Amino acid sequence: MVRDTGRIDRQRCIELDRADPLAPLRAHFTMIKGLIYLDGNSLGPLPSATPARVQEAMTVEWGRDLIGSWNIHDWMQLPGRIGNKIARLVGAGENELIVADSTSVNLFKVLTAAVQIVRRDTPDRTEIVSERLNFPTDLYIAESVALANGLTLRLVDIDPEEGVDAVLDDATAVVLFTHVDYRTGRMHDMSSVTRSAHAAGALMVWDLAHSAGAVPVDLAAAEADFAVGCGYKYLNGGPGAPAFVWVNPRHLAEPQPLRGWLGHVSPFEFTPEYRPAVGILGYQCGTPPILSMVALDCGVDTVLAADEYGGMDALRAKSLALTSMLIELLEPVSAAHGLRVVTPSEPSVRGSQVSFAAPEGAYSIVQALIARGVVGDFRMPDIARFGCVPLYTRFVDIWDAVEHIRAVLDSGEWREPRFAARSAVT
Amino acid sequence: MVRDTGRIDRQRCIELDRADPLAPLRAHFTMIKGLIYLDGNSLGPLPSATPARVQEAMTVEWGRDLIGSWNIHDWMQLPGRIGNKIARLVGAGENELIVADSTSVNLFKVLTAAVQIVRRDTPDRTEIVSERLNFPTDLYIAESVALANGLTLRLVDIDPEEGVDAVLDDATAVVLFTHVDYRTGRMHDMSSVTRSAHAAGALMVWDLAHSAGAVPVDLAAAEADFAVGCGYKYLNGGPGAPAFVWVNPRHLAEPQPLRGWLGHVSPFEFTPEYRPAVGILGYQCGTPPILSMVALDCGVDTVLAADEYGGMDALRAKSLALTSMLIELLEPVSAAHGLRVVTPSEPSVRGSQVSFAAPEGAYSIVQALIARGVVGDFRMPDIARFGCVPLYTRFVDIWDAVEHIRAVLDSGEWREPRFAARSAVT
Repeated sequence: MVRDTGRIDRQRCIELDRADPLAPLRAHFTMIKGLIYLDGNSLGPLPSATPARVQEAMTVEWGRDLIGSWNIHDWMQLPGRIGNKIARLVGAGENELIVADSTSVNLFKVLTAAVQIVRRDTPDRTEIVSERLNFPTDLYIAESVALANGLTLRLVDIDPEEGVDAVLDDATAVVLFTHVDYRTGRMHDMSSVTRSAHAAGALMVWDLAHSAGAVPVDLAAAEADFAVGCGYKYLNGGPGAPAFVWVNPRHLAEPQPLRGWLGHVSPFEFTPEYRPAVGILGYQCGTPPILSMVALDCGVDTVLAADEYGGMDALRAKSLALTSMLIELLEPVSAAHGLRVVTPSEPSVRGSQVSFAAPEGAYSIVQALIARGVVGDFRMPDIARFGCVPLYTRFVDIWDAVEHIRAVLDSGEWREPRFAARSAVT
Repeated sequence: MVRDTGRIDRQRCIELDRADPLAPLRAHFTMIKGLIYLDGNSLGPLPSATPARVQEAMTVEWGRDLIGSWNIHDWMQLPGRIGNKIARLVGAGENELIVADSTSVNLFKVLTAAVQIVRRDTPDRTEIVSERLNFPTDLYIAESVALANGLTLRLVDIDPEEGVDAVLDDATAVVLFTHVDYRTGRMHDMSSVTRSAHAAGALMVWDLAHSAGAVPVDLAAAEADFAVGCGYKYLNGGPGAPAFVWVNPRHLAEPQPLRGWLGHVSPFEFTPEYRPAVGILGYQCGTPPILSMVALDCGVDTVLAADEYGGMDALRAKSLALTSMLIELLEPVSAAHGLRVVTPSEPSVRGSQVSFAAPEGAYSIVQALIARGVVGDFRMPDIARFGCVPLYTRFVDIWDAVEHIRAVLDSGEWREPRFAARSAVT
């Protein structure tokens, strides 16, 4: 049933896995036997090192050394230390990126700073521009910032022919895009979009939620202005892991709007006057959740462990091999069942996931797959989404997942009442 | 050397501990043998239940059940479930209080909402009023909110004779006080101050960082408007534990300014339009750090464990016995060495800590005590601070701590170079 079975079959996938130079990285994770986990783009799996490390943070650092651990175990510097690790994955310099708060809260900080910078010189720029199909929290926060600053949030649909330039003008203050679309996995050209924003006189804010650790990112080369990203997806930091924020050094003089004590240049002077810390440290606000920070540190290390196997370039090559295979194998299934693969077939504009739209029953299809031990996820209104993470996803997983997808569709088992849409949480 | 040794001595303290009905609660914590930990007002100690519970959250929930845990283990409801537990400690109703973000970020939410409410009807009210010696993050965030809304932050010193009324007027929009002062341990009369704020036509925001789990609080009886508080002090939630936020139901219709996806009425509809969740759920913003949340849950349970021993009333009675004894024992030491106990001797206005000012060498005194295994902390400019937490602090700890304080001062060992002031972090 698979097209061109002479070229690709299960045995060939097993051989690809045997020959995969990145294969040893899978041992860095606690993978569940018999489960094909293709949802690392929503919640990365548990790294093998995390439980012992968090246990140590609890019993030795917190339990034994107590308050002294802020110094002894350098909890104070943890957000910056992890930030510097993430920086290497996204083309940021030393001390330009820090871990803090959530993606949403960090977006509030950078969007506000960006708006303030632009409006100082060009107060007639009144719009934050984002994509209608951007991840909702980006839009909600952008609306918060727009409201608080007397601006408007303008939502656009980018016509692939006309590009981004067509939607920007001299009313644009700030452009907020997510680099890799959470539904389709389509990836923007970061340099090109940033150039368009700058050409229009606007600043560019990137959300790297589906990029950091997933695809090569070079914020410096793109000359981006601000970026935020997520710790619990491709960085494997654990549920609700703290997020990160990057600011181009040229904008660091601009204060961010959430002036908490940990963003102060000298928090333990306890002075009533706020003086921001130098550089990215000023983007901290309150006290960071150390246990979740420690888990994030372990997660980031799983990505950096790829360094000795070729790093992000090697990860990207395998990611594209995985997603290309998944798209190719899905094609005949799609043809037979009226599905539509919505992830670009062109590799240069593809993130590290593959999604299909099922006009009927996407939620139920995903549920039926989960019952079979293939974990993807559903996204409104009709998207079934499958993350392919080269750190731990195998070619044979892709093969088997497609076999299950085919079986679920051929048999019609997804129509069983037990798979019917409920209040979908994940 | 101790005044009235016939009435109080070490043996008497041991007897008080033997007779203490709350003594079994100490077993809920991992206490370090030989260490007298009087810094639970900065970082509560590790509850015995926490390591296994967080381990389970890592290996079973995250590791095995992966993304499904948002439903299976109800991570989605965790902030509200813990919030309802904390609500019982601060006189809040069901579904009025939620765990989210940091104290600083929550302050930004409630201060902004409060300002918006007041300014809608009385736009001529242009001031947020707080105490000059309030914890700095409160002042920094209040200044952020003032700046963002065209208001002024006015810092006041309350004259005990004249009271709060004297500093409020028809320019006051919002009053932000911390219930228990972090330096002196002086406690405001919540009802009285709130009445003054309301009488002046302002709204009242309380910071409960040093109150929740430490002293009886009744937000409803005080008719307060908003409150925030900290998870890592008397709630024993672990370093940087998530914070909490309470909103009087009469103000819940007012949107808060950080519109993240988890504050949406239906986050998984992924609609571009923000519609706030009903009630306090709308005060969530981004995805919560689950591992730190789970630890906080265990911490809050250690306070609720006092319920079977008389609850907060019993905790308060022991707290006052501990702090009264500490003040009494410190008096002759103070007299001999020029210290000044700055914590009120009047129990009704005292929190759960005792502090003394040492015009010379407070930092070094605290360091010398730490070297002797007595952990308090230093606060600028001259405060040595000792938290007395009835869940685990014993009367004999107070006795021994004072003996060490006396020894450090009598011997002058605090003048040794190894105790000299460095960059003080905690």
